[in-house]
Amino acid sequence: MPVLVVGSIALDTVKTPVEEHADLLGGSASYASVGASFFSAVNLVGVVGDDFPKAHIEFFSQREIDLTGLQKAQGRTFRWSGEYLWDLNTRETRSVELNVFEHFTPTLPADYRQTQVVLLANIAPKLQGHVLDQMERPRFVIADTMDLWINIAREDLEALLPRVDMLILNDSEARQLTQETSLIKAGARIRAMGPRYVAIKKGEHGCLLFGDGRFFSCPAYPLEDIHDPTGAGDTFAGGLAGYLVSQGGEVGFEQLRKAVVMGSVLASFNVEAFSLERLRTLSAADIQARYEMFRLMSQFEVVE
Amino acid sequence: MPVLVVGSIALDTVKTPVEEHADLLGGSASYASVGASFFSAVNLVGVVGDDFPKAHIEFFSQREIDLTGLQKAQGRTFRWSGEYLWDLNTRETRSVELNVFEHFTPTLPADYRQTQVVLLANIAPKLQGHVLDQMERPRFVIADTMDLWINIAREDLEALLPRVDMLILNDSEARQLTQETSLIKAGARIRAMGPRYVAIKKGEHGCLLFGDGRFFSCPAYPLEDIHDPTGAGDTFAGGLAGYLVSQGGEVGFEQLRKAVVMGSVLASFNVEAFSLERLRTLSAADIQARYEMFRLMSQFEVVE
Repeated sequence: MPVLVVGSIALDTVKTPVEEHADLLGGSASYASVGASFFSAVNLVGVVGDDFPKAHIEFFSQREIDLTGLQKAQGRTFRWSGEYLWDLNTRETRSVELNVFEHFTPTLPADYRQTQVVLLANIAPKLQGHVLDQMERPRFVIADTMDLWINIAREDLEALLPRVDMLILNDSEARQLTQETSLIKAGARIRAMGPRYVAIKKGEHGCLLFGDGRFFSCPAYPLEDIHDPTGAGDTFAGGLAGYLVSQGGEVGFEQLRKAVVMGSVLASFNVEAFSLERLRTLSAADIQARYEMFRLMSQFEVVE
Repeated sequence: MPVLVVGSIALDTVKTPVEEHADLLGGSASYASVGASFFSAVNLVGVVGDDFPKAHIEFFSQREIDLTGLQKAQGRTFRWSGEYLWDLNTRETRSVELNVFEHFTPTLPADYRQTQVVLLANIAPKLQGHVLDQMERPRFVIADTMDLWINIAREDLEALLPRVDMLILNDSEARQLTQETSLIKAGARIRAMGPRYVAIKKGEHGCLLFGDGRFFSCPAYPLEDIHDPTGAGDTFAGGLAGYLVSQGGEVGFEQLRKAVVMGSVLASFNVEAFSLERLRTLSAADIQARYEMFRLMSQFEVVE
């Protein structure tokens, strides 16, 4: 059973205090679909320009990502350029070129419309809604978002929230959306806006999961060196969605706990190198070993 | 078997965005010894002035804290006044009066010198060292510190570190002490300065424990309303030390994991009310129930 992933596909230029690389494979849907592909089949919905390197298409294909929903449009691929400051926690966007993404309004392939788990990776909430309009009774819908949409498309986002089962966002976005300083209150407020489950990502401090009157605190993996934080949140969302699909059956809080851990595992690998480089060589054994590390570093009873 | 606690005993004036209270029982040793008293006997070393309310002395006695090491000096008790800003994360010290604390150089009662677990709660590192000088081969020594000492008594602190088994400090202090932005690197750097174990407190993000090549991430309890953060770190240290003593036997990473959780449990209660008020009515059943909550909110396998 596949997961449907819609989002951006980009060519990124990323500068850290140590390195700078241009025209890297990037975009929320790239990270999310590759992340999900470690656990399940993926139906990818997105758009690239005629300058998009064939090698990236081949990489998606190798990951067994279905590309029937990938539009190839005339013009340049969406481009983003950003710079991370000294502590890698603060990011400044240097430039954005929408290019072929500007007029992207996808029509889903007929056999995508019954996909049961949908990941609306980070794009404009209106576009997320447009994709959701075409789905036939999906079983579980996950949406990711970002500060930009809270700022410039808040109404669209508020209209989307009652239609999704789970919202993923980071701590500062949760505070921005709810005007609550306490993340615990923010989680409750967001749930009141629609989604039954909310995951608040806290970077180096891990992730909080809210829902069904329960609470889960997922630690962050203790990485000493982070090379490129770009796409960590998208990879998290993709890993989470793919893992959920791979488990089948009902989706409830207990399934989401493990899915949040698996998303965190995937994201912890992704930041070890620029772009999606680390995911190219990642193995199931690597994932299992790090999952075990998460278990060891968060349990305080019956630790072997 | 008791734990020896040395630190400050104060009368605090605390202002939050909501309330202000004057002449509250405070000080690192007050919070730490009451925190520890939920798990073990306590030998308290500290000083109060002749204005120190009898009721507070009685409270210590009710908690079965041994007061042979509590000096009563002529003059006023140490006073601290602070204000918390809107999000309760930022604190400004409004005034400090050392009073009887200024010339405090304790001579330990003879039967305190063999106490096996020592908690050097937050006071000047020179004074912490002075107490340690009088101990006869303690089994496990825990020290707490703060930004003030890193700023004005760094050499004393560096001299103390090789003499302690565990250092407790918060995230900004760990960064300040090591000049590392990554808390993972900071933890390793502090261990290289002496202590075999390091606990880095992160407030609303929980606590990290480092040592023996292992790592433990303890979540924070999801409190919606914090009334007074004063003393949370001291209560954490006290609960941790008291629990360690109550378990007897060797102290290693596995024992410290649970001790960190118990410290976090105690601290999570303490911030629910001003001063030590919440600890006055706290029961063993309350502690056990919240410990269970910590277990549920951090485990992602075999959750009942």
